[in-house]
Amino acid sequence: MTALSGRDLLSLNDLSPQEVRELLELATQLKSQKLKLRCEKVLGLLFSKASTRTRVSFTVAMYQLGGQVIDLNPNVTQVSRGEPVQDTARVLDRYLDILAIRTFAQEELETFANYARVPVINALTDLEHPCQVLADLLTIQECFGDLSGLTLTYVGDGNNVANSLLLGCALVGMNVRIAIPNGYEPNSVVVEQARAISAGKTEILITNDAKAAAKGVNVLYTDVWASMGQEEEASNRLPIFQPYQINDALLGLADKQAIVLHCLPAHRGEEITEEVIEGSQSKVWDQAENRLHVQKALLASLLGAK
Amino acid sequence: MTALSGRDLLSLNDLSPQEVRELLELATQLKSQKLKLRCEKVLGLLFSKASTRTRVSFTVAMYQLGGQVIDLNPNVTQVSRGEPVQDTARVLDRYLDILAIRTFAQEELETFANYARVPVINALTDLEHPCQVLADLLTIQECFGDLSGLTLTYVGDGNNVANSLLLGCALVGMNVRIAIPNGYEPNSVVVEQARAISAGKTEILITNDAKAAAKGVNVLYTDVWASMGQEEEASNRLPIFQPYQINDALLGLADKQAIVLHCLPAHRGEEITEEVIEGSQSKVWDQAENRLHVQKALLASLLGAK
Amino acid sequence: MTALSGRDLLSLNDLSPQEVRELLELATQLKSQKLKLRCEKVLGLLFSKASTRTRVSFTVAMYQLGGQVIDLNPNVTQVSRGEPVQDTARVLDRYLDILAIRTFAQEELETFANYARVPVINALTDLEHPCQVLADLLTIQECFGDLSGLTLTYVGDGNNVANSLLLGCALVGMNVRIAIPNGYEPNSVVVEQARAISAGKTEILITNDAKAAAKGVNVLYTDVWASMGQEEEASNRLPIFQPYQINDALLGLADKQAIVLHCLPAHRGEEITEEVIEGSQSKVWDQAENRLHVQKALLASLLGAK
Repeated sequence: MTALSGRDLLSLNDLSPQEVRELLELATQLKSQKLKLRCEKVLGLLFSKASTRTRVSFTVAMYQLGGQVIDLNPNVTQVSRGEPVQDTARVLDRYLDILAIRTFAQEELETFANYARVPVINALTDLEHPCQVLADLLTIQECFGDLSGLTLTYVGDGNNVANSLLLGCALVGMNVRIAIPNGYEPNSVVVEQARAISAGKTEILITNDAKAAAKGVNVLYTDVWASMGQEEEASNRLPIFQPYQINDALLGLADKQAIVLHCLPAHRGEEITEEVIEGSQSKVWDQAENRLHVQKALLASLLGAK
Repeated sequence: MTALSGRDLLSLNDLSPQEVRELLELATQLKSQKLKLRCEKVLGLLFSKASTRTRVSFTVAMYQLGGQVIDLNPNVTQVSRGEPVQDTARVLDRYLDILAIRTFAQEELETFANYARVPVINALTDLEHPCQVLADLLTIQECFGDLSGLTLTYVGDGNNVANSLLLGCALVGMNVRIAIPNGYEPNSVVVEQARAISAGKTEILITNDAKAAAKGVNVLYTDVWASMGQEEEASNRLPIFQPYQINDALLGLADKQAIVLHCLPAHRGEEITEEVIEGSQSKVWDQAENRLHVQKALLASLLGAK
Repeated sequence: MTALSGRDLLSLNDLSPQEVRELLELATQLKSQKLKLRCEKVLGLLFSKASTRTRVSFTVAMYQLGGQVIDLNPNVTQVSRGEPVQDTARVLDRYLDILAIRTFAQEELETFANYARVPVINALTDLEHPCQVLADLLTIQECFGDLSGLTLTYVGDGNNVANSLLLGCALVGMNVRIAIPNGYEPNSVVVEQARAISAGKTEILITNDAKAAAKGVNVLYTDVWASMGQEEEASNRLPIFQPYQINDALLGLADKQAIVLHCLPAHRGEEITEEVIEGSQSKVWDQAENRLHVQKALLASLLGAK
């Protein structure tokens, strides 16, 4: 129960394959209520971007553990008055037991983690979204049982979710294909990290060909084409990303038992069609729910809950 | 204790006369601390309009039940990024145990309730304010004992509070008179619903004549002349609503034991005078407190607390 | 444990020397976890100015007591819609067990306290910052043991922190020197209150000479030169306040065992240098942490926790 006690989770690359398996197992036990853990600690949420799922799921996870949450909206903290991250981190460290941070630059997250002795969780940066991908893996595991040997194809923008999927799939022995337009590749350092984890034992493919990438796969995954902060260029992106839409045609290429995932919010008619997201192969609501269970497991593990 | 378990409260018309009586009785027992209920659940507050009383009273009610609250400020959720209500409702449903929603259109509330399986409470819409009126009925019951046969006169704007008073009074066997300027009538569908509940057994009067309506009544009630979102037209309304002010003259027409209610915030010198709101017949602070007790009873009932 | 039960803390002048000593002793016991107190009450935070330390430390203090907190952000309350303080105070009083208020005018705080029967805590006004100074005294006591006879020199702006330091030092028998530019003196009424408490038994010096004031002292203390709301005149103040910077030269004049305090956020290169704030004599992080412990003691005492 204390495997990760006191550590940070800044990137999925911080976890070993064994640790990912244990987190998913713990999440499964908590979800089924076979296991109950209590942890009367205080989680701080420091979010510089809007959030529904992450904020609510972290909050409820902590409440269900018997803990408390404080929402450190940047509008009401001194961070907005130009206090250096180093100072804010050292002060919050004196009050809180654990921190979940949503910010832009991975470097800012790392600085925060360097100065705060309490565990720091990446609740989304421009580089990674590890908690989302842990929930995704839990959802896939619920549908297929053993993750090892399955193939996931992500179509769309090579963003933080794509980066974390590369690492997450490699860690659990899944094949991963990222189908993106030229110029929207996932982060090259992360791709190399994924290859190092995989060590040639799983497929890692970066391609422009969505159709070929979708053929026979177990999981089709997409995300919005323009992430938070990229709203202005959203309309420019529409024609570029059109071939990467998950629609009935693309889904028809996948395995018949394939499931569809989307980390939400979804833009129907853009990256996914109404038919697919509301169809029987869509597991997006279970996927959203699993944020709660996997983050509860993560909080319990980092805090050494009993 | 589980009479309303799992249901929504979108309109007072969702409740039977018996259910209203039981809620008021439960609120009375909780207020007197003769009964203690515990319910370790999570309430989400999704408020698109400013709120003091509703937000604080719901929050404290849940805390006193041993539960938790998450404030889903639209500024920090994805709802503001254009996610369809259907999606937000289905996601929040996976995390929360119950939702209180303050919004503009009753239809939006109903859509939310259709897609969320957890109980949804109307915490004010443009059409109704059922929690306010339950607190009002509790306050009147505390002052007079039996509600049946009493008469309440509401003077001012035929807004959501007026609508819910029409339904609430009919449900408990009270006579209700709504005195409003031409053009500011309560919702005609709600008036018909109230008449259907009353079935001719209680008085339901819509009139322009505040003085006649105030004569001999047990309760005089008013609200601000311009509700949230109508601030621009507030000054135009002043002369139109002047005859509907609760002042010493109007109060003098009521029964000598009459009480004065106002759901606050009050604009002294507009819909109510300083003398009346601070006078001995004013029960507005007890009325505000009763939001806490009645909503605690409602939460406990909808959640099946024990 | 119930010494302050039901009282307000609007100014340090509300406390007797004995009460300050007992609060510091209680904070020490809570910090060392020799004593555990529980108090399932609800604290309301009504903050009209940004805050990190105060908001987080009050919140976590209440959580650790087993209590709950509601953040009454003025943006989401009716206070912003022009409701009189008297009405807001009387309504909140019906829902909450205790209130911490951060506002501009001390008079507004006093009005609030007059209309709310529950305890009201000054969480910073333009006149005073009593919770900060209680945390400062705890920090000094941890470093030196007995407070009586020590000397503290505050250099910079004669603001709310300077005012509360004058009162706090007098209450615990410490000498206090305030070194400020002409025109930036601490509040003259507060200076007289401090002299009345001291009754000539301790030094109370208001001076322009930072160097003379720093000579041989045990504690050097500063705060930002422009407080919240004074940002526009910040650049004008720079040359005026330069002689009052805590740097190695000024610190060299103090006692060799002297400690440096700053209530944060700090502007390096302005009121304090990087070398000093990061140096071995700086106790600013312990000082920030002590907000938590001293406010927990205060909440427990005002609420009569057991």
